[in-house]
Amino acid sequence: MCARPGRTPSPDTPPPLADAAASAALARRAREIDGAFARIEPALAALALRQFEAGFAARARAELVEAFGVEVAEAELAADWARPLAAGRLYARCAIGTFARLVAREFDRSIARLHEGEDAATLIRRWGFHAIDITPCADGRLAGVVDYVLRVPPAVVAFRKSHAGAMFDVEQSLRHWETVELRRWREGRPNPASEPTRYLKLGVYHFSSRDPRREGCAAHGSDDTRAAEALLVRLREFAQAVEVSHCCGAQVATLLVGVDTDTDAIRVHVPDAAGRMSATRYVCNRTLYDETAALAREAAKEAIRTAVAECAGVSADDPATEGMRWFCGYLLKNNLAQVDAVRRAFGGPYPDAGHTERLIVAGDGIDDVQLRNLAFQAQTETAEEAAFDLDVGVKILEGLHAPRGLAIPVLAHFEYDARMPGAQERAAARARRLKAAIEARFADRVAAGRLLVQAAIRAAGEPRLQLLDLQADPRGCGCTHTESHR
Amino acid sequence: MCARPGRTPSPDTPPPLADAAASAALARRAREIDGAFARIEPALAALALRQFEAGFAARARAELVEAFGVEVAEAELAADWARPLAAGRLYARCAIGTFARLVAREFDRSIARLHEGEDAATLIRRWGFHAIDITPCADGRLAGVVDYVLRVPPAVVAFRKSHAGAMFDVEQSLRHWETVELRRWREGRPNPASEPTRYLKLGVYHFSSRDPRREGCAAHGSDDTRAAEALLVRLREFAQAVEVSHCCGAQVATLLVGVDTDTDAIRVHVPDAAGRMSATRYVCNRTLYDETAALAREAAKEAIRTAVAECAGVSADDPATEGMRWFCGYLLKNNLAQVDAVRRAFGGPYPDAGHTERLIVAGDGIDDVQLRNLAFQAQTETAEEAAFDLDVGVKILEGLHAPRGLAIPVLAHFEYDARMPGAQERAAARARRLKAAIEARFADRVAAGRLLVQAAIRAAGEPRLQLLDLQADPRGCGCTHTESHR
Repeated sequence: MCARPGRTPSPDTPPPLADAAASAALARRAREIDGAFARIEPALAALALRQFEAGFAARARAELVEAFGVEVAEAELAADWARPLAAGRLYARCAIGTFARLVAREFDRSIARLHEGEDAATLIRRWGFHAIDITPCADGRLAGVVDYVLRVPPAVVAFRKSHAGAMFDVEQSLRHWETVELRRWREGRPNPASEPTRYLKLGVYHFSSRDPRREGCAAHGSDDTRAAEALLVRLREFAQAVEVSHCCGAQVATLLVGVDTDTDAIRVHVPDAAGRMSATRYVCNRTLYDETAALAREAAKEAIRTAVAECAGVSADDPATEGMRWFCGYLLKNNLAQVDAVRRAFGGPYPDAGHTERLIVAGDGIDDVQLRNLAFQAQTETAEEAAFDLDVGVKILEGLHAPRGLAIPVLAHFEYDARMPGAQERAAARARRLKAAIEARFADRVAAGRLLVQAAIRAAGEPRLQLLDLQADPRGCGCTHTESHR
Repeated sequence: MCARPGRTPSPDTPPPLADAAASAALARRAREIDGAFARIEPALAALALRQFEAGFAARARAELVEAFGVEVAEAELAADWARPLAAGRLYARCAIGTFARLVAREFDRSIARLHEGEDAATLIRRWGFHAIDITPCADGRLAGVVDYVLRVPPAVVAFRKSHAGAMFDVEQSLRHWETVELRRWREGRPNPASEPTRYLKLGVYHFSSRDPRREGCAAHGSDDTRAAEALLVRLREFAQAVEVSHCCGAQVATLLVGVDTDTDAIRVHVPDAAGRMSATRYVCNRTLYDETAALAREAAKEAIRTAVAECAGVSADDPATEGMRWFCGYLLKNNLAQVDAVRRAFGGPYPDAGHTERLIVAGDGIDDVQLRNLAFQAQTETAEEAAFDLDVGVKILEGLHAPRGLAIPVLAHFEYDARMPGAQERAAARARRLKAAIEARFADRVAAGRLLVQAAIRAAGEPRLQLLDLQADPRGCGCTHTESHR
């Protein structure tokens, strides 16, 4: 359904829906993030040269705090000729420290503009939704899905939880939906339950246009039809679970979107009049980009509207499907600007089709820093439930880190509600439990210094990640009974 | 606060609140359950004598189906002189089969009578509640807490989830509360949200009057004050979590109850006018039993009412605390009949102060068969979250089973909503995952044939447990990749 990518746009004739200002701001942010991580290896290389100097541990400790905001126990920095610096583990600490600093940096995420200046709440309501829940694949190439690929402001996104292959847990999603609905009933937030809006669950799979059999979704054997079909079944099961377990016409909306990780172009599987989607029926933004490249702005927007209505099999003024079609058009329009930005920056697709993730984020997700290939995210309460996700993530990051002698950085992170007595302690206990379980699953790698798990918690709404037990894990111990080291 | 147990009641002068008919029915049920398990060892002993006969496996297989309703693969029954029958594992299979048969037996659980013939819904509403959630300790001596100790009909109990030390997860309980409240708002079930009723969470700890330092709650170091205080903190955190995370006066009721596992007498920590409870302020039913033994029925009920009001520090006609006090009185009155039944049956406390559990039930709880010391119940989604609970349970059951050469039977069980497409498969996947995680945690015991985990699922509301992969686990393999054996 997608044409091959067309030629590179000329800088003189920007396509009608390009957004040069937003793309430039996003590119600046990407450079800042990449730059922060790029500093780690040279700094550690220089540090390692001095490791046998007297007083090294204390000086190195101070320098690491200064350069990467990371506290490392002096014991972990004590080196001699027989036991040189465990530089690979140190790298993982610095990567985690750098990530935490970028999170605390509080990037302005309002770059992605709202439609015609309307505020998020009004807009979502006009689409007929009251909450948008995005479930992408855990794959790091989707780590910029909200800010870059979909260019949706955070205010529009109620939740984002990633899973390998986007294979979310239906029962957990059902409980999530219940939490949102109860708030509408009790508090009228974000809108009263009497308004006929729906909860929208957006499932995002991915594929590779350049190397479809190898660089697609690992969780679905790099087969885009399989990825789309499996996610479609899961979305349908979620919708049915809501309908069956709650009476009185309980209903959710679902939408399937695919991302080409080589070009960031999306496929939107527009639902038909009955809400049905198909794995093979979609609007392809690579095609739409070429088709609209030479049009005027209004004509380009009209072309999107027509493509969406045709895909849905309804007329462009069908009132019943209007909200969903508006939303699909909004996603396609935003994404055209990203497709343009990628083509313009690289003169074609991304030069790196594959993975370059910096770390794994397990537990609760972190969306403050968005960037393609930044983090492999596995949202879960336990390593037991996300064993498959973690195995995929560790395999991917091992391929990147092991050849350079670097440990894989893993953050075991949970958020808590600071207003709730005891919630901080409970989140910390959860984070430590997840850390211990990940360490147990990958015990050999931990013992060999090839994987490092850092427990972290964060008060909801606060920029600062609290890294736990930083002083408690001397080099080579791998011990999780942190108290004994205090 | 409790007097020492008084003398044994005379059969000629039953105390005013004894309930001979209910107690006799409960005793009959207990004998049927005990009898079913008592048949296993002699039957297997007889079977083992014939294990070297020709055609043994096929005959034994048929006999086990007949006697215990359990399907055992013939490969597991094939024995020769060098590899004799793994009778310890077979015992665990028969114990699980027996338990599943008893569940399918659908005992009449309406023996415990409702107050003055009112139906459950009316009664709970009159107490000012709309749902009662009982969280006991996982300890098997509380496995009869609903039917025997509290004598509360199942219609009154919305949920019962057990955890070691009754240490439930606050965030999970919060989500539970949300599910219940949403149903009230959307469906008016069990009553409309406009009615000023509350969700009641009942925390049940336990202690031993006969051997307080050794036979109390293992999870709290057999210290009843510690057990009560820890549960009190947890109940308070739950109440605060509801208040803080949902506005508009969201409020739950909580109640702390202790059970003396030697006499089944309860302590009810009646809340004061402000809803506050104390670990050391309670009405003790051992004392109340002696105090009311010689009274007439109405005078005995009046004595309960007085004791409850005194404990709450309010007058007996205080309207604000009336519902909760009625409920506390209802529990005390019901429990007096159980205290009487135990004293009468054994001429004092239970002769066995300790454990005699038959199996461990992990995952979703099973309440259809209630009996003291029947099952250690650990309600959890994962072995990772319930590691402590499982360790406690395995330690307890190992002490009982290992000396007799018997494997510990563990059921990894989840319920599903049969109306939801895919729910059965998801529950099965969950059960198999939990089974595999428990087997991994106790790998040595599994390999040595000292622990056997059976995955099981059940459609909510159906009597039949579906035991999974029965043909797939040949003796000694311990393999969890069941498909390969088909």
